[in-house]
Amino acid sequence: MKQEYNVAIIGVTGSAGMSTLRILEERNFPIKSLVPIASDRSVGRIVSFKDRNLPIQAFSSVDFSKIDFAFLCAGSKFSSQYGEAIAKAGCVVIDKSPYFRLFPNVPLVVPEINGNLLRNGNKSGIISSPNCITIPLSMTLAALRQVSPLRRVVVSTYQSVSGAGRKAIDGLYNQTKSVISNMGNSDDIFPKPIAFNVLPLVGHILDNGQTDEEEKIIQESKKILQEDLEIAVQCVRVPVFIGHSMSVLCDLDLLPNDMNIIREAFEVIEGILVVDNQEEETIVTPLDIQGDDSVYVNRIRVNPQWDNSLQYWVVADNLRKGAALNSVQIAELLLEIDPTLSKFSVNCK
Amino acid sequence: MKQEYNVAIIGVTGSAGMSTLRILEERNFPIKSLVPIASDRSVGRIVSFKDRNLPIQAFSSVDFSKIDFAFLCAGSKFSSQYGEAIAKAGCVVIDKSPYFRLFPNVPLVVPEINGNLLRNGNKSGIISSPNCITIPLSMTLAALRQVSPLRRVVVSTYQSVSGAGRKAIDGLYNQTKSVISNMGNSDDIFPKPIAFNVLPLVGHILDNGQTDEEEKIIQESKKILQEDLEIAVQCVRVPVFIGHSMSVLCDLDLLPNDMNIIREAFEVIEGILVVDNQEEETIVTPLDIQGDDSVYVNRIRVNPQWDNSLQYWVVADNLRKGAALNSVQIAELLLEIDPTLSKFSVNCK
Repeated sequence: MKQEYNVAIIGVTGSAGMSTLRILEERNFPIKSLVPIASDRSVGRIVSFKDRNLPIQAFSSVDFSKIDFAFLCAGSKFSSQYGEAIAKAGCVVIDKSPYFRLFPNVPLVVPEINGNLLRNGNKSGIISSPNCITIPLSMTLAALRQVSPLRRVVVSTYQSVSGAGRKAIDGLYNQTKSVISNMGNSDDIFPKPIAFNVLPLVGHILDNGQTDEEEKIIQESKKILQEDLEIAVQCVRVPVFIGHSMSVLCDLDLLPNDMNIIREAFEVIEGILVVDNQEEETIVTPLDIQGDDSVYVNRIRVNPQWDNSLQYWVVADNLRKGAALNSVQIAELLLEIDPTLSKFSVNCK
Repeated sequence: MKQEYNVAIIGVTGSAGMSTLRILEERNFPIKSLVPIASDRSVGRIVSFKDRNLPIQAFSSVDFSKIDFAFLCAGSKFSSQYGEAIAKAGCVVIDKSPYFRLFPNVPLVVPEINGNLLRNGNKSGIISSPNCITIPLSMTLAALRQVSPLRRVVVSTYQSVSGAGRKAIDGLYNQTKSVISNMGNSDDIFPKPIAFNVLPLVGHILDNGQTDEEEKIIQESKKILQEDLEIAVQCVRVPVFIGHSMSVLCDLDLLPNDMNIIREAFEVIEGILVVDNQEEETIVTPLDIQGDDSVYVNRIRVNPQWDNSLQYWVVADNLRKGAALNSVQIAELLLEIDPTLSKFSVNCK
């Protein structure tokens, strides 16, 4: 008989939590019981999962020694306060928040790139899923590294509002509606209006002038790729609902003359799709890929201005591969490696 | 008595032409007569200029030997067909189109940077105004070059729809309205819908994989800065009405430790305003600067990942400094150098 698991989603009412629920459903994750958890004001509300109607539970009412997997989608503060306690109860924690990502004993995993890290188990009981830009970016860099060592990477992002949660989606909608109806810009979801605007700030500015978002992408990419990569990032919020894009310039030690080698290298990485017909000027935009699982690579070209330099455009659904899908894929990988989960749980049950 | 001039605006009904008209008015350009010119379907329509109501005239009906300045705002095809003939009639041509920009005998001018080129006159009778990204970008690079020789520049743009003309402004508005009213995306101003989307394509893709827009920015920057700069560009269209932004990474031979030196270097260039209070997370967005003449520099910071590398964000109104304002400033500079215009006109009058 196929093994089934007890799964909790913490922060189920947020956009990452809701996407996790839907993706577990779509992918037929082997679930015995699903425990939706959210803050007190949502407790008792019903969440549907397959043919079941499940009441949202309070975090404090759940015994995590009886849960196999907890997907943490409740933000850094929650993870910092409760992540380790949940893991110590014997529940495998898959954390979407930034909190544990750079902890040396916590694996930071994009299954297609460094899933092998997990083959030997994980003593911390916690596995982190990276930032929504880090995931697609590091997939493309892992692809290129098959062809040549990487030298330098320069990234500018075009990040959708859903990266800032469900309120931000409503915010963009309401602001746009106000502008269209001549009522001026409303709301203050972001530091400046987002409707018909772009904001060169995602997160907060640190002492070194970078934002925490930019630092995350830099440090997480280095950890995932396990190299001291030279990478510079400018993060920008754009008035798009779903889908993060980025412009990437990557200097390699040696760039092959044949672009087909590059295209094939991208596609060797599971989850990357190259869509790049230059003659037909095929472009890939966030609107095209909303709801898709793939990371799309487009506008691949040699930078004609200096040697061994490649430019390309990347788009991915930040709520799927950029967030919930990656977390669920981590869980699937754990089951593939060890269906008993004893390699990954702090206290074997 | 103050000298006054006969001025024609060709393509007066377009966004660049209309902005030129308004800026000539605002800046009290010394005009004796203004001749608004547009295509046949607009002939006879009235254009207001100060207290005058002027009928739009047909190009073929105008004797350019009687005009001192012609602002060409009618696109590359018109400039290629008629630009030289207008200049040969003795009228000084200031061309906003890309057509003449890389002609060796045609100066490509941003007055604050290379206006001195014009001190010795101009035998071609034509002066080109650069691309709307090239102008603000090259101003910031000229600023940095005062501090140290430049090594490499990597740019990603966030270009508003008004760069594609008035139809594109209506297009974004109508598309957005359709989406908000649940009627789906309408129109096809761009290759893909622009409402709530970003498009990694401005212009057309060339054989080398770059777009003509990207190539323009590269080649024009080199011509203006008179150096074989290493510069890579990704152009992206965003759903903003007015205002082009860009993310810039610039490697210098030697970057000073003191960021105040950098800030001051930017502000030495007339037309640049540094707005960059990191403690207060001050950001500058296109919505903030619509209608402004300045080029705003924001989020200036040392790239912590490799030596002598600077990152910053630039925003400017693409219809003003990026287009019409620069053209009018060129005309003002000519008058300052030689009020008789004999140094700039092919046939002295």
